[in-house]
Amino acid sequence: MRDVARAAGVSPALVSIVFREAAGASPRTREKVFATARSLGYVRDERARGLRSLQRDSIGITFRLDQPFQAAVVAGVYDAVNLAAHPIVTSPTSETRDEEEALSDLIANRCGAVIVLSSRLPADRLARIADDLPVVSIARTVDAPRVDWVASDERGGIRLAVDHLVELGHRDIVYLSDTGSAGGPERLEGFHDAVLAAGIRDSARAVGAGRTEDAGSAATLRLLDAGRLPTAIVGFNDRCALGVIDTLIRRGVRVPDEVSVVGFDDSEVAARSMIRMTSVRQDPIALARAAAERVMLRVGPGGGDLPAAGIVKPTSLTVRSTTAPPRVR
Amino acid sequence: MRDVARAAGVSPALVSIVFREAAGASPRTREKVFATARSLGYVRDERARGLRSLQRDSIGITFRLDQPFQAAVVAGVYDAVNLAAHPIVTSPTSETRDEEEALSDLIANRCGAVIVLSSRLPADRLARIADDLPVVSIARTVDAPRVDWVASDERGGIRLAVDHLVELGHRDIVYLSDTGSAGGPERLEGFHDAVLAAGIRDSARAVGAGRTEDAGSAATLRLLDAGRLPTAIVGFNDRCALGVIDTLIRRGVRVPDEVSVVGFDDSEVAARSMIRMTSVRQDPIALARAAAERVMLRVGPGGGDLPAAGIVKPTSLTVRSTTAPPRVR
Repeated sequence: MRDVARAAGVSPALVSIVFREAAGASPRTREKVFATARSLGYVRDERARGLRSLQRDSIGITFRLDQPFQAAVVAGVYDAVNLAAHPIVTSPTSETRDEEEALSDLIANRCGAVIVLSSRLPADRLARIADDLPVVSIARTVDAPRVDWVASDERGGIRLAVDHLVELGHRDIVYLSDTGSAGGPERLEGFHDAVLAAGIRDSARAVGAGRTEDAGSAATLRLLDAGRLPTAIVGFNDRCALGVIDTLIRRGVRVPDEVSVVGFDDSEVAARSMIRMTSVRQDPIALARAAAERVMLRVGPGGGDLPAAGIVKPTSLTVRSTTAPPRVR
Repeated sequence: MRDVARAAGVSPALVSIVFREAAGASPRTREKVFATARSLGYVRDERARGLRSLQRDSIGITFRLDQPFQAAVVAGVYDAVNLAAHPIVTSPTSETRDEEEALSDLIANRCGAVIVLSSRLPADRLARIADDLPVVSIARTVDAPRVDWVASDERGGIRLAVDHLVELGHRDIVYLSDTGSAGGPERLEGFHDAVLAAGIRDSARAVGAGRTEDAGSAATLRLLDAGRLPTAIVGFNDRCALGVIDTLIRRGVRVPDEVSVVGFDDSEVAARSMIRMTSVRQDPIALARAAAERVMLRVGPGGGDLPAAGIVKPTSLTVRSTTAPPRVR
């Protein structure tokens, strides 16, 4: 296809459009491309074969529209995949569009492989999809045959947050958990491990919350109303932590003077000065690159025979203005 | 296809997968669906025809990954389009992936129509794409034959912001403009009109900025360094206004005591209590619905002969805590 493009003096993308009889090329261009192809000895079968292989190797990706971290990962996947060999098809989820819908669109689109971002589907469901085509999970570990995953070191990330707070002098720490979200079980385990290691098992605790500002806000109201406000709160993610800060400030509790707050994701909002939130950083580009490499390997020759791989990328802690030593009470 | 699904006891989506020979159905299911289809008198040609029409009527959409307002519009389009008749194909843009790339992916995907969100392409480029397939633009007016558009009342929105500030007593108002963005020229015109109508042409002015926090921050630093801080600033959008507030606070200027700030979009971040930003509201769902209706009309019978339509949706103003009467100096 590249040879035809060069000889016809047009882009490979345009040749692809013409060969696939898609819209977007003028009749004159079509004629020129076909004439060039014939002169180079290309025949109709070649075209059909090109179409088939191109469709088989396209890569689908599901992601949540309203999560900035996921948007950054998707942009990273576009950068890391060889788009000429593997066109990407995105299929977003939202409040009203679930993952099964998003996936069935990709399958109907004949994707040759799918990347699922922060998937909430059961492992056996992902394994069944992997019977038909390669599945690579990002930001969610999956214990299933043939399903590859790339995730941040969630346990290590929460540990960084707890250790930072303990170093500042905090012992009364609450973790707002969300085990229904990808990474949630690992973060909760990481919290329990870190608390044990720091010897603060009696004063630190985890409570269920969620992954949105509203969830963080509701959990904070419950703590306030129960009169059991800790000296530090670790949010499941930045959005949850934002809801915590929001609610504390509305109720007249100063951050970090009275309560320190740590988020998770180090998203753009965490860096703004009204907030300047201390947050655990996952690297969306590192996750995207590793997943892209894995999926290209999978759709390549012999890729179907590879054993499932789990890849862990390190996390780090960005310390800003929402954490400080606890006030002496 | 629905008849076959009913008779075979499976979902229409699954029948579609089997008919199109896509992955996602077990061999047993395939056999059952084909047997049922044969018993109902379906022949191979019917299958081919089904494939063709389905592909022709799919709807592509381009949008920017890191703009929350656009994510809300995309979610709205999924809700408003009849997905059984018109599968949606999303093609996001980012820092490293431009609109032309995003569009050529949709064209290669044989979309039957495209929705472009906040497009920055020249009108004649959009018109050329519309030669081949219907194009509906959201949040950007397009003066071109055959290109439909749905946009908020940008002029009216900026007018609401200026009138609000004038009512509070402000005369020294700066608008941070971004004419390179969709809606930018209209917002700038709206600002000039509003300023004229309010009789504050000598004390109000527009300066070039941009659509990101960094752009708002840089413009504010220029105002601070020139010693020409106004009593009120209207940001091109919420992200720009956030950069303004951020920079003012860092430099020790109180909002709204010393400077009032108004955003545009009324995005989620505007509502948080650390910010509680006064902002012009566009309705993403109303825009999405109008665009979805238009595109379904376009791909329907006779849709190609319709004259281009421009649809304007009203804006409103959400007043919060970043605006107040100017301080007497």
